[in-house]
Parts: sequence; structure tokens; C-alpha cells
Amino acid sequence: MATRRAGWVAHPDGLNPIAVLTAHFPAHWLGASPKNVREWLERARADILFEASSLDAKTGQPAIDHLKAALELGAHAITANKGPIVHAYAELTALAHEKGRKLMHEATVMDGAPIFSLFPMGLPATDLRGFCGVLNSTTNVVLTEIEKGRSLEEALRRAQAIGVAETDPSADLDGWDAAVKVAALTIVLMGVPIQLDQVKRTGIRELSEEKIRSVRAAGMRYKLVCLAERRGDTADCTVQPELLLASDPLANLEGTSSAIRFDLDVFSLSLVEHNPGIEATAYGMLADFVRAVQS
Amino acid sequence: MATRRAGWVAHPDGLNPIAVLTAHFPAHWLGASPKNVREWLERARADILFEASSLDAKTGQPAIDHLKAALELGAHAITANKGPIVHAYAELTALAHEKGRKLMHEATVMDGAPIFSLFPMGLPATDLRGFCGVLNSTTNVVLTEIEKGRSLEEALRRAQAIGVAETDPSADLDGWDAAVKVAALTIVLMGVPIQLDQVKRTGIRELSEEKIRSVRAAGMRYKLVCLAERRGDTADCTVQPELLLASDPLANLEGTSSAIRFDLDVFSLSLVEHNPGIEATAYGMLADFVRAVQS
Repeated sequence: MATRRAGWVAHPDGLNPIAVLTAHFPAHWLGASPKNVREWLERARADILFEASSLDAKTGQPAIDHLKAALELGAHAITANKGPIVHAYAELTALAHEKGRKLMHEATVMDGAPIFSLFPMGLPATDLRGFCGVLNSTTNVVLTEIEKGRSLEEALRRAQAIGVAETDPSADLDGWDAAVKVAALTIVLMGVPIQLDQVKRTGIRELSEEKIRSVRAAGMRYKLVCLAERRGDTADCTVQPELLLASDPLANLEGTSSAIRFDLDVFSLSLVEHNPGIEATAYGMLADFVRAVQS
Repeated sequence: MATRRAGWVAHPDGLNPIAVLTAHFPAHWLGASPKNVREWLERARADILFEASSLDAKTGQPAIDHLKAALELGAHAITANKGPIVHAYAELTALAHEKGRKLMHEATVMDGAPIFSLFPMGLPATDLRGFCGVLNSTTNVVLTEIEKGRSLEEALRRAQAIGVAETDPSADLDGWDAAVKVAALTIVLMGVPIQLDQVKRTGIRELSEEKIRSVRAAGMRYKLVCLAERRGDTADCTVQPELLLASDPLANLEGTSSAIRFDLDVFSLSLVEHNPGIEATAYGMLADFVRAVQS
């Protein structure tokens, strides 16, 4: 275990969970501070790394280095970080393949809802032509609060209070978080190695509070919509506020709910995750653990 | 291949797909008519049986006998029939396990959408507390057509014309099809061996056309809703018409679309299949084939 509060904690025989929960760490668990994540993983003799460090979405670091270290040392690498998927997917999957280990990342989009793990066994022999979704919880909460009469600042504080907003509000409000998710889905599920700067991106700051409330009164809603559409060998990817009719399944999302519609050659299929809490992300990593050791 | 039109067709070296598509069967494919499905499967040296015979949902026959014959002869058994799941699931899965073969049935609920195959790898280590869905296409089409001003008889003819209505309209209108689906989901996904007659069932015949249209004008809709809720070792299962608000994701289903919300301990997750055609059922069986031979 390595966290900002606890520092580096490791023992080759494993850690007592009660001691971990009470943050009581015997001295022999701590030892000399390791030089880097690799040395710490070696000391722990890790079989699996759960990687949930703070992310720079524009570079994917330091998560990429953590995941590489785990795979190189023969551990499965499970991440809740989207950055490594967008910036180093080909390299990391090749490394995982070479080492006979798994790179798993279900918690990166829609928390623990099975998005990436839906495809290999749930939708074999299909062609994914595109997708459309509402994937950023913060803008969803913010738009809902503004509809109720709050200001942008009050709405953002509410999103921070329930623990969904990123530390830097521009990651959410300017559509960066959504753009990284669109890129990750496009790279993994459509097999198109798109770059983050190829995602056309418009955030929600340009929408006036009055406009958001007036369309709501008329039975419509603004949502920050994520879109991808296959174009030959590449894909058109967009994040932008869209005005949706009340009958649109994406319009009825409240709070932290998110949804995605996959347009396949055989049919279109939507998944909706209803008002998850932060334990849903933890569940995504737990589910990856089960998948890594069972398959 | 065995169909009403073609009769029993089999050859140990396999069938030429062009000949099958043009219904031109060389004499040596036909041979003497086999006494039963078992003799035909032996002659074909089948690795997999795709079972899509006409169903008696109240007994599960003759589908159960077909699937047993396939498994006993060492073939994977893939069915689009719900009856065998409701009436013989424990027996068939035990037989499949004993023979090291797969019993698969994804096409029985929501066509090819991954419902049954979602759980083992997509949602490991979860507790399914209940579910709620709109799972019968015919009543969905019929209610939509009545909302538009058509009579029950006209609406039913429309559902038959697009190929979704069962031969016997009471299977749909009286909620039998939906009840069999609720029972199949409860047995497989909740592990509760419920009997078909334990599903409380009310169809849509008692709803007057005027009532259906007047609630629609008021922004609400009737849908035939399928419900299951865990109660200790058993489950409460219901099929009944429910009045839904327009903002309810289940209310916005049109045509052949269907949807289900799974209430798990970690979160609630909905799946919506948008307006599938009959090829979606065929896809469900194809996907089972891929899963059977890949895993």
C-alpha cells in the first residue's frame, strides 16, 4: 500500500487488513523508503497493482510509469486512470501480452459499470460504428443544480461536496475529463488510435444560466454529450453541450448518473448507471481483480 | 439442419452454405428420415445444436428434449427458447457440466443484448437484489399503436406484420411471454428456482383504449412491467401494466425496444436495446456460439 498519508507500506507476507484499516503500521512494514514504485513493488512481491494515483490527464503520468513497473515485475496492472489508456495503450497492452499479465481499466469510464468488459464476451463478432454518451458526472450535477436555480459557483461547490468534481474544475467544465473518456473508448473499443487533441471539445462555461433554465422550463435539457463516429480508418470524436428532448434517454440523467449508447451493426444498446457513489469506482477495480485472476 | 420446410438434413462432412441458402439439398444429405432428433444429431456428428423450435412455454417441450439429446451426445446446446430455462434449468446445467459442454440461452431475453452473459464477467462479486423491465415487444408495439389511435385488433395485426407477435396473441397480451422471461431471469441471475405459476401475472387486455390514450395525452404511458425482488431465499415476481411518468427511462421505449434495470448491491444498471429487428435474435445465438467455443 502506498498513499500520501501512509507513505510506502510493504511486507512480502502481506498486510493485516485490520492494521491497514486502523492505519497502524508495524515498523517492519515500513523499512527504508524505497527509491521508486518498482523497488516498493519488489519488496511487496506484488501479484497485482491497483493504480489510483492523482492523474495528469494530458500526459498520463505518473500512472503510466506505475503500470509499466507492475507489468515488468510480473504483476497484473489495474488502473482507475484514463490517462494511460489514452497516452500509452498500445505500449502497455504489448507489455502485458509479453509478460502474460493483464492490463485492466474498467473503472476509468462509468465507474464500475461493465463497459470495457462488456465487449469481448458480451458482444463478440460485432462492429462498433459509434457511441454517444453523457460521461462526466460533475457537469451533470452542475447543470441539474443550475436548472434548480443555483449559480455556476454554487453548483460546482455542490459537485465538490459529493466528491465527484476533479480538483481542477476546468477538467470537468471545459470538457477535458469527457474528452479523455471519449478517446479511451475510441482507442480500446473501436481500435482507432486517436490522440487527445483530435477530440473536438467545447465545455459548458459558454451556456448561460438563464438559457439552461429556460430550456428546462420548455421540457428540454442541456447535457455535455460525448460522441464518436467511425470514418473509415479513423473516427470523429466530439464533446459538446447538446440540447436534448425530454424523451431522450440521455436527458433524464440526474446527479452522478451516466449513460452511453453503443451503435453496433446488429443493434443499438444503451447502458445507464444510476446515481453511483464513490464506492462504484472501487467496485470497478475489485471486478477487474476478479476478472484478472479468474480468466 | 432441420426445419418444417426442409425436413431433416445432415451430412457428417457438413453442409455447403450456398446449397443451404438456396434450399437445394443433394440426395445424400437427406437419407432416410431419422426416428428422432438424437438420430439426426448422430448422423450430423454435431458439435453444437442451435435450438429454435416452436415453443410450448408452459411445458418447455419439445425444446427440453432437443437440448438434452445434444448435451448427451457431447454437443454444446444453444437455445432461443425460454421454456427449457424455466422448466429444466437445474437438470440441463447439471447435464452440461457432467458432459463438459455449454448450455447457452442469451437470445431468450432481449434478443442478442448481453443479459445473461453480462453477469459472470461483467458484474462479478455482486448481489442482484431485483430487477425491473419492459421485456415484451408485442405489448410495447400494441400500446404504442393504441396511443396513436388504433384499436387493439389493428395494433395486434401491426405487431404480427413486423414479426414480433407470438402465434397465439394471449402469450403476449395476457403476459405469459413476459412471465416466462421474469422466471428465466430470476432462476439464472438470482439463483432462485421459482416456478412459472409463482409469477403474479396481469396482462394488458383490461386496459381500455380510452384510458391508454388519455394518460398519454397527460404525458404518461402504460407499459407491461416485469418486476422481481429478492425476499430471503425466494423472490416476489410480478408482470403487470404500470403507469409510468414520461421521465421514467422505461416509459420512452418505442416499437420493439426493450429495457431492464438491475438493482445490485453496488449500483443500479440499466440496459436498453433500441428497436432491434429479428436478426437480433439470430445474433444472440451467434454470440453464444462464439462464447461456447472461445471460453
